[in-house]
Amino acid sequence: MFKAVVYVTLKESVLDPQGNAVKGSLHSLGFDEVNDVRIGKYMEVELNVNDRVAAEERLKEMCEKLLANTVIEDYRFELVEA
Amino acid sequence: MFKAVVYVTLKESVLDPQGNAVKGSLHSLGFDEVNDVRIGKYMEVELNVNDRVAAEERLKEMCEKLLANTVIEDYRFELVEA
Repeated sequence: MFKAVVYVTLKESVLDPQGNAVKGSLHSLGFDEVNDVRIGKYMEVELNVNDRVAAEERLKEMCEKLLANTVIEDYRFELVEA
Repeated sequence: MFKAVVYVTLKESVLDPQGNAVKGSLHSLGFDEVNDVRIGKYMEVELNVNDRVAAEERLKEMCEKLLANTVIEDYRFELVEA
């Protein structure tokens, strides 16, 4: 069994209105030292697979098909045997 | 200047309906090996601070006040000098 941690982030060139909103809120709260905020997604996926290569292959497919929108987002993942 | 990566996750005991929905979608797409999905938040925060201890202190405050709901969520962060 494997546990995967998947990170999905907006590509550098894509505007991040949610991040800007959080930055604005932090400024209103007095955190003026905040220059920039970018928001992404974090997912933990438990896989009932015994082979690391197979797990990587399947995770890649999941990211491409559902977890990330590859037009505007990048993804990466880490696999840990559980 | 520091760059922080903040991870906010639901506490173990808290139900994750969003994760369950994603798990259901993965199953419908044929990824039956997926046992469980938990969804969290991922944030990159750029801080205009020169001192690491001060940066940690301020980030902790931001997490407690805005970035995480500490009743149902845990947070952790990593600081990298940029």
